[in-house]
Formats: sequence, C-alpha cells, structure tokens
Amino acid sequence: MVLRQDWSRHPCPIARTLDVVGDPWVLLVLREALLGATKFDEFRTTLQVADNVLSKRLAMMVDEGLLTKAPYKGRQRTHDQYLITEAGADLLPVLNALAHWGENHTDPPRRHTAMWIDHNGHTSTSATECSTCGEELTSANRTYKRQWVAP
Amino acid sequence: MVLRQDWSRHPCPIARTLDVVGDPWVLLVLREALLGATKFDEFRTTLQVADNVLSKRLAMMVDEGLLTKAPYKGRQRTHDQYLITEAGADLLPVLNALAHWGENHTDPPRRHTAMWIDHNGHTSTSATECSTCGEELTSANRTYKRQWVAP
Repeated sequence: MVLRQDWSRHPCPIARTLDVVGDPWVLLVLREALLGATKFDEFRTTLQVADNVLSKRLAMMVDEGLLTKAPYKGRQRTHDQYLITEAGADLLPVLNALAHWGENHTDPPRRHTAMWIDHNGHTSTSATECSTCGEELTSANRTYKRQWVAP
Repeated sequence: MVLRQDWSRHPCPIARTLDVVGDPWVLLVLREALLGATKFDEFRTTLQVADNVLSKRLAMMVDEGLLTKAPYKGRQRTHDQYLITEAGADLLPVLNALAHWGENHTDPPRRHTAMWIDHNGHTSTSATECSTCGEELTSANRTYKRQWVAP
C-alpha cells in the first residue's frame, strides 16, 4: 500500500489484513464486486470515484489476489473485467461487520435507501443464512437488491 | 476524516462505518484499547507510531465517540487517558473478521527462524555470547545468516 509503512509481514494478522484492505476504496470496490460489478465503468459509476483512484485500487487488488483480470470482447476492442476471487469473497465477514456497526452507530441519510438480499425470491436480512427458509447462502444463490431499483 | 470525501451520510452503512474507521491506524488503536491500553505512551510504544499521527487519531476517535477522554493524576501533572466506549467495543467483530482473514490469507513473518548467528560453525541464539560455546561475540567472529541463504 501507499499511504503508510509496510505491514505485510507484521506479526499481527489484523495489521497484515489492513496492509491489503486498509484503504476504504478497496472495501467499497469489494462490496461492488460482491454485488456483481465486473467492469471498470460499473465500479466508477456506482462508486463515483476518480479514474486514477479506481485504476490504482483495481491494479493493487489484482496484485493482492482479491480480484483476477479476465479479458472480454467489447464492441470495438477487448477490455478487462475484474472477477472476485475466493480470497476476495472471504472478506464478506469484514463487510458484514462494518455494515452491522454502521447500522447501529451511525445515522442513515434522511431518505433511507436500504438493500436487501434475495434468495430464490425469499427476502433475507442475513447474508450467510436465508432468514426466510434457513438455507445457507453463498455467492451462487444470493443476490443483493437495492430498494431504488425495481425488483 | 481527512483522506477523502465525506461518507458520514452515505446511504450505505459500510461507507458510513468506513468514514469513522477507514483509517488503518484507527483500527490498530482500537485493538490496543481493547487489550487494555489507555495512555498516550502505551499506544505510541506498542504501535510505533509518530506522535502527530497518534494524537490526530485519538482526537478524532474521541470526536466520533469510540473513546472518551478522562484525566488521571501523573507524577508531575494531570494527563489524559483514553477509555474505550460501548460504540468502540462494538467494533470487535470488525477486528475479529480482519484477524480471521489475515490468518487465512496472509503469511506470518518468519521472525523466530528467519535469521541466526554463526560463530565459527556454532549456531548462536544470542548476539553477545555464543549460546553453543559461551565465547564472547564481536563483529569479527560473528556472522548473521538468513534462512533463505544456503548454510
């Protein structure tokens, strides 16, 4: 990482993880990747992030093994897309813990725009186990929905 | 926070939490506070962090309600100590999730076996006195060896 000293070989596993995800943009890019974003423009539009900031984060996340780069054919030429890896998906508990704290200890904006999890038509309030039917949720059977997008 | 845009009223609770804990030092200060540190010098010594970096983070964490400041009587004068709040302690699941990922996806340092000291073919664990034969070690009769260099 760029902002401070190298913690990649720190004895504390929290510090070693922060060496990879200590930048807040990295966690928000991961959130979008877990929601299904794969293309540069998708990340840029949802996150409203500057091009140089985003491309630096994506390159670093590929280096660190959170994302893999795969080519796809665009209309004019071949582009890169960014696919989440197992290691990247394993950061979901970090995102869940951050979301949980935010729900309990910060104020939402006045017009609340919630997200929910869809599991084969069930609405779930948990990301790990369907709160309707109890089935274990994985990235394969779980979709994140936004209130402001028609279901 | 200072490094980027204000996310304190963002619709996403992850972003709102990152507005408070998006700086890696904040999470390491919290780790120390949860381990019992309360005094400026305790945080500074364990974290090996510059004074200005630490005092900025502590002030911000008091502002955000993660720590409270309480005076205590030192030998010469009254100092401040920093006590963790309920909201601060509620970040433990975030630290746990970070630690868990670090244990699974990053390499710990090889700190115990990474280097050893060679004294005329003896392996020594001390740099001042050969732990094999007891002879005093100096820069003339002592060589530092690394594990990844063939002995």
